[in-house]
Amino acid sequence: MEWHNVIDAASPELDQLAERYHLHPLHIEDCRQRLESAKIEDGEGYLFTVVKCIELTSEGYIDAHDIDLFLGKDFLITVIEPGDKDTRQNIERLQANGNHPRADQIYYRLIDATVDKHLPVLDHFNEVIDDLEDNAMEAATSSTLSRIFEIKRVLIELRRILIHTRDVTAHLQRVDSPYIKRDMWPFLRDVYDHISRNLDHVEMLRDLLTGCLDVYLSSVANRTNQVMKVLTVLSTIALPALVVSGIYGMNVKGLPGSEAQYGLVMVLGVMFACTVILLWLLRKFDWL
Amino acid sequence: MEWHNVIDAASPELDQLAERYHLHPLHIEDCRQRLESAKIEDGEGYLFTVVKCIELTSEGYIDAHDIDLFLGKDFLITVIEPGDKDTRQNIERLQANGNHPRADQIYYRLIDATVDKHLPVLDHFNEVIDDLEDNAMEAATSSTLSRIFEIKRVLIELRRILIHTRDVTAHLQRVDSPYIKRDMWPFLRDVYDHISRNLDHVEMLRDLLTGCLDVYLSSVANRTNQVMKVLTVLSTIALPALVVSGIYGMNVKGLPGSEAQYGLVMVLGVMFACTVILLWLLRKFDWL
Amino acid sequence: MEWHNVIDAASPELDQLAERYHLHPLHIEDCRQRLESAKIEDGEGYLFTVVKCIELTSEGYIDAHDIDLFLGKDFLITVIEPGDKDTRQNIERLQANGNHPRADQIYYRLIDATVDKHLPVLDHFNEVIDDLEDNAMEAATSSTLSRIFEIKRVLIELRRILIHTRDVTAHLQRVDSPYIKRDMWPFLRDVYDHISRNLDHVEMLRDLLTGCLDVYLSSVANRTNQVMKVLTVLSTIALPALVVSGIYGMNVKGLPGSEAQYGLVMVLGVMFACTVILLWLLRKFDWL
Amino acid sequence: MEWHNVIDAASPELDQLAERYHLHPLHIEDCRQRLESAKIEDGEGYLFTVVKCIELTSEGYIDAHDIDLFLGKDFLITVIEPGDKDTRQNIERLQANGNHPRADQIYYRLIDATVDKHLPVLDHFNEVIDDLEDNAMEAATSSTLSRIFEIKRVLIELRRILIHTRDVTAHLQRVDSPYIKRDMWPFLRDVYDHISRNLDHVEMLRDLLTGCLDVYLSSVANRTNQVMKVLTVLSTIALPALVVSGIYGMNVKGLPGSEAQYGLVMVLGVMFACTVILLWLLRKFDWL
Amino acid sequence: MEWHNVIDAASPELDQLAERYHLHPLHIEDCRQRLESAKIEDGEGYLFTVVKCIELTSEGYIDAHDIDLFLGKDFLITVIEPGDKDTRQNIERLQANGNHPRADQIYYRLIDATVDKHLPVLDHFNEVIDDLEDNAMEAATSSTLSRIFEIKRVLIELRRILIHTRDVTAHLQRVDSPYIKRDMWPFLRDVYDHISRNLDHVEMLRDLLTGCLDVYLSSVANRTNQVMKVLTVLSTIALPALVVSGIYGMNVKGLPGSEAQYGLVMVLGVMFACTVILLWLLRKFDWL
Repeated sequence: MEWHNVIDAASPELDQLAERYHLHPLHIEDCRQRLESAKIEDGEGYLFTVVKCIELTSEGYIDAHDIDLFLGKDFLITVIEPGDKDTRQNIERLQANGNHPRADQIYYRLIDATVDKHLPVLDHFNEVIDDLEDNAMEAATSSTLSRIFEIKRVLIELRRILIHTRDVTAHLQRVDSPYIKRDMWPFLRDVYDHISRNLDHVEMLRDLLTGCLDVYLSSVANRTNQVMKVLTVLSTIALPALVVSGIYGMNVKGLPGSEAQYGLVMVLGVMFACTVILLWLLRKFDWL
Repeated sequence: MEWHNVIDAASPELDQLAERYHLHPLHIEDCRQRLESAKIEDGEGYLFTVVKCIELTSEGYIDAHDIDLFLGKDFLITVIEPGDKDTRQNIERLQANGNHPRADQIYYRLIDATVDKHLPVLDHFNEVIDDLEDNAMEAATSSTLSRIFEIKRVLIELRRILIHTRDVTAHLQRVDSPYIKRDMWPFLRDVYDHISRNLDHVEMLRDLLTGCLDVYLSSVANRTNQVMKVLTVLSTIALPALVVSGIYGMNVKGLPGSEAQYGLVMVLGVMFACTVILLWLLRKFDWL
Repeated sequence: MEWHNVIDAASPELDQLAERYHLHPLHIEDCRQRLESAKIEDGEGYLFTVVKCIELTSEGYIDAHDIDLFLGKDFLITVIEPGDKDTRQNIERLQANGNHPRADQIYYRLIDATVDKHLPVLDHFNEVIDDLEDNAMEAATSSTLSRIFEIKRVLIELRRILIHTRDVTAHLQRVDSPYIKRDMWPFLRDVYDHISRNLDHVEMLRDLLTGCLDVYLSSVANRTNQVMKVLTVLSTIALPALVVSGIYGMNVKGLPGSEAQYGLVMVLGVMFACTVILLWLLRKFDWL
Repeated sequence: MEWHNVIDAASPELDQLAERYHLHPLHIEDCRQRLESAKIEDGEGYLFTVVKCIELTSEGYIDAHDIDLFLGKDFLITVIEPGDKDTRQNIERLQANGNHPRADQIYYRLIDATVDKHLPVLDHFNEVIDDLEDNAMEAATSSTLSRIFEIKRVLIELRRILIHTRDVTAHLQRVDSPYIKRDMWPFLRDVYDHISRNLDHVEMLRDLLTGCLDVYLSSVANRTNQVMKVLTVLSTIALPALVVSGIYGMNVKGLPGSEAQYGLVMVLGVMFACTVILLWLLRKFDWL
Repeated sequence: MEWHNVIDAASPELDQLAERYHLHPLHIEDCRQRLESAKIEDGEGYLFTVVKCIELTSEGYIDAHDIDLFLGKDFLITVIEPGDKDTRQNIERLQANGNHPRADQIYYRLIDATVDKHLPVLDHFNEVIDDLEDNAMEAATSSTLSRIFEIKRVLIELRRILIHTRDVTAHLQRVDSPYIKRDMWPFLRDVYDHISRNLDHVEMLRDLLTGCLDVYLSSVANRTNQVMKVLTVLSTIALPALVVSGIYGMNVKGLPGSEAQYGLVMVLGVMFACTVILLWLLRKFDWL
C-alpha cells in the first residue's frame, strides 16, 4: 500500500499524483478550491472523499480545514491544509507507526479523528449557551443579544458541516465499495452513529439558543413591567400629596384647618391616608 | 440457556465473557463508555442492544441508566449499572423465578420493563406543565420562566432517549433476527406501539410547554397593559386637581371666587367636574 | 355469521369468547385497559381493531369511548363501553335489522359511524375559535387566554385520536385481509378519505388557534400603545399649565402681568397657547 | 362519444345516467353532497373525478363550485352547479364547437380551465397582501389585524383546494388509465406543473402574510417606543421647571434672589439650564 | 452537430425550427410565455429544458432571464431573451471557439454558467443581511423593518428559482437520457451538488433574516425598557422635591423651619435626602 500525503494542494506533487493515478480533473479542482463542503464521489479506480476537520479558535469560533482523500485499491492520497496542525500530527503519528495497516484502515482512522474533534466543540457551545441563558435571565443587555446571534451563525455553519459529513458516512454504509473491506463496516457504522448523535446535539443546541432569545424577550418584557409598576407606585404615593398640598396652596378662603394649630399635622394625615387607601385599592383589586 | 448478569461494566468478568462469546471490542467499549444512547447492532453470533432505563430523581429531573444486552442463540449477557437498583431487583426477580424461560423472552421482558418506567415520568411532567401553565397565567415571575426552560431541557433529553429506543424496537420489527422466535413478534410490536405513544406524549408535552411560554409572554404583556391603565387613570384623576390648584396658587389678581365665601367648595367642584368629564371621555371614546 | 356484542370488557363473557375464538391475551388486555389509542393488529384467525368514538361533553370538551372489534371469517366480536350510549343504540339498530349482513359490512358500518361523529365536533370547535378570535380582537382578557389554551389541549387530543384512526384505515387499504371482501374496498377508501379531510380540518383549526394567540398579543400591544398615547396627550395638556402656574406661584418679584387687571386671562392664554403648540408639534412631526 | 352534461346534481337525469352506465352509488352521493374536496376514484368502467372551480366574489373572497366528471371509454358525464356560470359557458362553447373531440380531450380541457382560473385569484391576493404590508408598516390599526386574519382563512381554504386538485392530477400521471390516451400525457403533466407552481405561490403568500403580522407587531412596538420617548422628553422639559417653581413657591425664608429685581429672570434661567443639561445628559449617554 | 441560437422567442425562426425538429407545441408556448420556472421535459426526439439565469440589478434586487434548451441527438436549439447580455456573450464565446464540442457538452456549459452566477448574488445578500443585523441592533428604525421584508421577498423568489433548477439537475441525474453521454455524468452531478449547496445557502440566509427581525423586536423592546427606566428615574428624582415643596407652599401654620434662618437649606436637604433614599431603595431591591 502506498500512502501519499500532500500538505499543500497547490503543489505540483498533486498534479504528478493525478497523472499517475488518473485522478479526475474535477476532483483535483475540488482539492484546490478549498471551499467545498464534505462530499464523496466515485472516481475511476478510486473513491474521492472530502471531510472537514473543525477546531475551536481562541475567540470561541470554529475554523474548518479540508482533508481530501483518494482511496484506491492499493493506494491512499491525502491532501491536507498547511495550517491544519492537528491532522498533520495525526498523519505523522500514523506514518511513524511501524506496522503498515491497510489503506481503508487509515482512511477510517482519519475520518474518525475528525469526528472525535466535534465533541469538545459541542461541549464548548453547550457551556456558552448555558451562560447566555443565565445572562438573558438576569441581565439582558444588548450585548447578550448580539452574542446570541453570533452563536446562531456558528451553529448554522457547524450544522452544515456535520450534515455533509453525515451524508458522506451514510454513503459509505450504503454503497458496497471495492476499496473498503467488509470488516471495516462496523467501524464505519460506528462513525455514522457518532456523527448522527453529534448532529442531534447541534439541533438541541440550536433549540436551546432559540430558547435563549425567548428568555431574553420575556425577561425584557418582565423588566419593563417591573419598571412600570415602580413608576405607578411612585405616582400613587406622590399624587395625593401633590393634590392636597396644591389645594392648600391655593389663594382661596376657608381651607379647613389652615388657621388651626395642628393644621399641618391634620393635612399631612390626610395626604398619608389618601396614599394608603390608594395603595390598598390597587392591591385589593389586583391592579398591579 | 445461560444468563450472565454483569453488574459493573468495568469488572474483568465482562472481558472473560467477551472472550468466550467472541463479543466485538467496539461493543465492549460501548458498555464501558456509558454515554451511548440506545442502539442495536448485529454482532457475529449475537445481537447487541443498549437500552436506557430512566427514573425520576427526587428533584424532579430524570436520570438514565444503561442496560446492555448481548442476545445469542443460547445465551444472554446483561450489563447493568451498579446504581440502577430497579433493574437489579427486576433481574433478581426474573432469575429467582423457578421455570427457566427462553433468552429472547427475558430480553423482551427487560426492554418492556424500561418502557413501563416512562409512564410515571411522563405523568409527572404533565402535572408540572399544568402547574406551570397556571403559574404563568396568574403570577408570571422570572422563576416561572427559568422553570419552563429547565423542563424544556429535560424534555429534549427525554425525547432523545425515547427516539433512540424507538429506533431500536423498530429495528427488532424489521429484521428477522435468528435470536428472536416468531412468537415474540406481537410482544415486540406491542413494545414499539407503547414507545411510539410515549413519544407522541413527549411531543405533546413540548407543545404544551411552548404554550406555557406564550401564556407567560401574553400574561406579562397583559399585566403591563393593566399597570399602564392604572397609571393613566391615576394621572387623569390627579391632573385636573393639580392644574386647577396650580392656577389658584398663582400670585395673580382676579381669580374667580378667590375672595368668595364658598370659593373653596366651588374650586373643588370644578376640579371634581374636570376629572369626571375626563374619565367619561376616556370611556366614551374607548381610549382605555 | 355470528355477532357477539360485549358491553363491558370486564365481564367473563369476553374470556369465554377469547377461549372459543383463540383471541390473543394481549388483545384481551387491550380491551380491558381502555387507554389504548386506535390500532389494528392481525391475530391468528381474526383482525383486531380498536377505534375511538368521540362525543362532545356538555362543557364543550371531548370524550372518547373505545370500540374493540374482532373480525373473523364468520364471526364479529364487538366490545363497547357501558357508558357509550350512541354506539350501543347504533349496534341495537343494526342487530334489530332483519336481513343479516356480512361481518365485514357491519365492521365497516361501525367504523364509519365513529367517523361520522367527528363532523359536529369539528364544527363546534370551528365556531368556538371564531368566537375566540373576535374576543381576542375586541376585549382581550386573561380568560380569553386560558380559553385558547384549553381548546389547544382539546385539539391536541383530537388530532392524536384522528391520526391513529387514520393509520387504522390506511392499514385496511394497504393490506389484503382475508376477512374483508373486495367489494368493501371503495367503502373503506371512502372512510379513509373522510378521516383525512377531518385531519386537515383539525390542522386548520390548530392553525387558526395559533392565529388567535397572535391576535391576542397584537391586540394587547395595540391597547398598551393606545393607553400610552392617552397618557402622553394628558401630560401634554397638563404640563404647560402646571409649569406656568408654578412660575406664577413663586415668591419672586416681577412676574409679568401679576399686578395687571387681566393678568389671569393673559396667563391662562399663555397656558392654552403652550398646550396647543405642543399638541400641534406632536401631530406635525408624527410623534404620536 | 356521448357527452351528458347535468346542470343540477339533484335532477333525476343523473339517476338515469347512473343506471345506464352503472355508476357507483357512493359517487352519485358525492355529486349530490356538494361538499367534497377534489378527488379521483376508479369506478367500474369509468374514472370518477371531482374538481373545484374557484372564483373571486365581489367582496374579495373566494367561492368554489364542484365539477364532477365521469370519464368512460366512449362517454363523458359532467355534473356542474347551476350557479357556476363560467363552467356552463365553457361547456356550451365546447359543445357548440363543430368537430367532436375525444372524451379525454374534453376531460383535460375542463380540468385545465379550472386551473387557469387560479391565476387571477392569486394575483388578487398578492396585491391585497402588498397593501396590507404597507398598511401594517404605516398605520397599524386593529382593522389591519382583522384583515390579516380574514386573508389567512381564505388562503388556508385556497391551499386545501389546490392540494386536493394537485393530488388528483398527480394520480392521473401515476396511473395508466384505459380512459386516457397516451398523447394526452404531456398535457396532463402540464396541468400538474401549473398547479404545483400555483401551490408554491399560495405558500409564498402565506409566508408573506405571516410577515405582515410580524410587521404589524414590530410596528406597534416601535410606535409605543416612540410615544414613550415623547412622554419622557416632555417630562424632562417640565420637571426642572416644576421643581424650581415649587421651591420658589415655598413659604420659607432666604430663597436666593426672591427679593432681587431680576429674580424672575434668574430663576427662569436656572429652570432652562436644568432642562438643557438634562436633555444633553440623555443624549450623551444614549438613554433615549 | 447543429446549434441554433434564437435570441427572441417571438421570431418566426423558432417556428421553422419547431417544424423541422418536430418540437411539441406546448414547449414552443413555454418558450414564448417567458414566465415559466425552470423545468425539464422529455419531447419526442429531444430533451426540453428551461433554466433561469439570475443577475443582480443595480438597485440590489434580482432579475431572472429564461434560457430554453432543446437538446437532440445531433442538434441543440437555445432560445434566450434579447435583454440577457451575459448569456448572449457566453454563447458567442462558445460559438467563436474553433473546435466544435458535442451538443451535451454545450448544454452542460450553459447550465453550469447559470449556476456560477448564483454565488455573487448570494454573497451580496449575505452582506446586506449582515448590515441589516447591525442596523437592527443599533438603530432600529421602521426603514430597517421595510428593508427586512424587501429582502425576504427577494429570497423567497430566489429560493423558488433554485429549487426548480435543482429539480431539473436532479432529473438529469436520475434519468438515463439518450442525449447525454455517460462521461458527462460527473459534471452534471457537480452542477447538482453546487446548486444544492447554494440552496443551503439561501435557507441559511432566510434563517438569518428571520433572526434580524428577532433582533429588531428585541432591540425595540430593550429600548422601550430603557426609556421607561429613564422616565422612572426622572420621576424618582423630581417627586420628593415636588411633594416637599408642595407641602411648604401650603397656607398652613406650623411648617417646621419655615421661619428659621436656615429653613431653606434644611428643606432642600430633606428633598435631597428623600430622593437619595428612594434611588437607593430602587437599586437595593433591584426594582429597576
